[in-house]
Amino acid sequence: MIHSRVLKGFRDSLPKQELIKQQIIHTLEAVFQSWGFVPIDTPVLEYTEVLLGKGGGETEKQIFHFFDNGKRDVAMRFDLTVPFARFMATNRSQLQLPFKRFHIAKVWRGENPQKGRYREFYQCDFDSVGIDSTLADYEILAMMSDSLEALELNNFTIKVAHRGLFNLFLSQLGVENDSVEILRIVDKLAKIGQEEVTLQLVELLAAPEKAQAILGYIQASVGKNNEESLAYVETLTGGTSPFSERLREVLSLLEKAGIAQHFALDFSITRGLDYYTGIVYETFLDELPEIGSICSGGRYNDLASLYTKEHLPGVGSSIGLDRLLAALEELEHPLGKQWSSADVLILNQDDRYLPYAARFARALRQEGVRCDIYYASKKMAVQFKYAEHNNIPYSVTFDEYSTDQGLGNLRCNHNRQDYLQLAPEAMAKIILSEQSAC
Amino acid sequence: MIHSRVLKGFRDSLPKQELIKQQIIHTLEAVFQSWGFVPIDTPVLEYTEVLLGKGGGETEKQIFHFFDNGKRDVAMRFDLTVPFARFMATNRSQLQLPFKRFHIAKVWRGENPQKGRYREFYQCDFDSVGIDSTLADYEILAMMSDSLEALELNNFTIKVAHRGLFNLFLSQLGVENDSVEILRIVDKLAKIGQEEVTLQLVELLAAPEKAQAILGYIQASVGKNNEESLAYVETLTGGTSPFSERLREVLSLLEKAGIAQHFALDFSITRGLDYYTGIVYETFLDELPEIGSICSGGRYNDLASLYTKEHLPGVGSSIGLDRLLAALEELEHPLGKQWSSADVLILNQDDRYLPYAARFARALRQEGVRCDIYYASKKMAVQFKYAEHNNIPYSVTFDEYSTDQGLGNLRCNHNRQDYLQLAPEAMAKIILSEQSAC
Repeated sequence: MIHSRVLKGFRDSLPKQELIKQQIIHTLEAVFQSWGFVPIDTPVLEYTEVLLGKGGGETEKQIFHFFDNGKRDVAMRFDLTVPFARFMATNRSQLQLPFKRFHIAKVWRGENPQKGRYREFYQCDFDSVGIDSTLADYEILAMMSDSLEALELNNFTIKVAHRGLFNLFLSQLGVENDSVEILRIVDKLAKIGQEEVTLQLVELLAAPEKAQAILGYIQASVGKNNEESLAYVETLTGGTSPFSERLREVLSLLEKAGIAQHFALDFSITRGLDYYTGIVYETFLDELPEIGSICSGGRYNDLASLYTKEHLPGVGSSIGLDRLLAALEELEHPLGKQWSSADVLILNQDDRYLPYAARFARALRQEGVRCDIYYASKKMAVQFKYAEHNNIPYSVTFDEYSTDQGLGNLRCNHNRQDYLQLAPEAMAKIILSEQSAC
Repeated sequence: MIHSRVLKGFRDSLPKQELIKQQIIHTLEAVFQSWGFVPIDTPVLEYTEVLLGKGGGETEKQIFHFFDNGKRDVAMRFDLTVPFARFMATNRSQLQLPFKRFHIAKVWRGENPQKGRYREFYQCDFDSVGIDSTLADYEILAMMSDSLEALELNNFTIKVAHRGLFNLFLSQLGVENDSVEILRIVDKLAKIGQEEVTLQLVELLAAPEKAQAILGYIQASVGKNNEESLAYVETLTGGTSPFSERLREVLSLLEKAGIAQHFALDFSITRGLDYYTGIVYETFLDELPEIGSICSGGRYNDLASLYTKEHLPGVGSSIGLDRLLAALEELEHPLGKQWSSADVLILNQDDRYLPYAARFARALRQEGVRCDIYYASKKMAVQFKYAEHNNIPYSVTFDEYSTDQGLGNLRCNHNRQDYLQLAPEAMAKIILSEQSAC
């Protein structure tokens, strides 16, 4: 006998989790497709060199890589951004720009598993590549908002800033050479607090007044509305600039779309990575800010510079699907609870009725009802337990009269209401009705 | 610069392929769920020992396996059956029997790539575990038929036989000790032909009359209808048996469901694997028999004997998704052609209209229209090329009058018909109408 264990940091997805996850994925796919974004997929395995580029660092330590039977150094993808960049370079001749894609798939990292963090997890990325434009920036932000609204998550804030504007500020302050380090420190603000950020900035720059100026910049939006904080930051960066104008135009489009209430300028948002050059953003659930950003991204200058000389600017965002799932559960959100393996279970009171049950089930399915049949000869208590375990709201039984008449006896498992004997069509109407008491 | 190559035997999925694949997967998911089957997922990586069991053989040579950073011997799943067996053993206490699951996911095998065969491919399995019953057998067969009909593939034949019946025949013939070898030879009938099968059987059994008897059995259905061939096989196996009765009852249920025309008894179907013990089946497209079975499976006695002492009988089937996709393409089936990145593209004739376009697009999306905006300032020819490349059937432009009035100018890209100026709601009706000329 082999012990049926699962690797550390990995897990099975049971029907409840899987149904909820698929419902969320289908909702997101529908939103992305309503914006003309298309799905792609890439291989799980790639040449390690292709995924790691020139330098590995932290990533190299976490990546699952090995030599295949052909002695090739191969690795499992650790994100969807690098494969997307490689995909653009590989398939460029078959694509038209702007190219708007989404990709919802698993990635793997050999991190030490912590609560809510696994070595196998989902990413959900959407990007618009090939043009640097206000409308493209607006589009990604509006899609983030539409996605969360489609998931019936209405209390969220998308915090927006602009890396170009921050770089302009740092350059005017004369500290542009330290910008990578400064970004790293500022990015930790929420984690380590204002005092520690100041300390680290002072230590880095050896100039307390410059550290204070940076702190002033990243707190420019505290207590101000979007227009006020943007105007204030313009005073800190020598007046209007293409960067501040871009932000203003994007906010205006969001306003006209009627979704501005979800967006707040927050100049402490910088996104640690060097990669971003324009607008940047993170998303927080108002009721669960402590779980961190559930959807983040920004504009970058050059997606695929590792693989092609073609300049591919873009803007994108990534939804943390596992974090989102955990949040839905914690919030006791309907989406995290509404699941059932079927709408109705036909019970087996007597094996004689099974052929009739098979036909009755078929008629229900044709009306759009998900219909399961219990075909073992077990006690009713066992059969009801099966219905309960699978969250099936209705059950159906038969008797001699009903089988003669083409009818069935419907019962709501929740409140144990029995209905009159019904034909499949009438039964389907009750089961599928939104006012269903069950 | 790093060469953006993809590993041998692997491939990217471009939007067209991915849209078609997802449409097929969603159709199958809906069918499976209409029968009360639930989705599960398992980790891509498992302990190699868990996947390979006691003996490796061919599988061991093909499996992608390696030592992870924790020096664990791990492997990527090479099918969905072994992980399902492991899943049942691991999660048994959280599941109710019968457990009816489906699993659509990628698997990996380091085979030498051939036309249409890749090292990364999809499997689509559905099984009902925990009971040996006529209705469970019927259910899987009917789901196979429903799945193909839902994909608008109506010309197919599901060939059905029974391994228990064949074993009974072999045992009455006194060759049950050679049954594994006999199965292996008979399974090659379609590939190597009747003559070669006879030769190999004669060589194996050193008894030409027994070889002839076996050949007579596996050809029992040639030129006969289902009832005739079943009756004939009963004469070859000493009269009615529980196995022949099971077949008869399953066929009767399929008849009552109105789908019997898709099923044909064919006693040459044996499925090579030792694993099967009851009903077995393979599915062929009438117009493309040469591509082989697109959906196969059978009943087994004991799913998870490697991991648990609990006896778990079951019945299941597996759709070859990649083969199915290739078939749809070859048949020029509508499902293989119907795709578009969006229903409508808003063209950019003048940047001034972009904010209006963003709002107009939003109104179209609220009506259920998938709406893309072209936001680069490019020549109309380039924009129409983008629409054509993405199969977008309609385009919309604006002018001063239309933007004043909240209207847009609709055009069918296919026949270049221009409509009158329309509000988003009226436009959506035309675009979404099934009689659309576009």
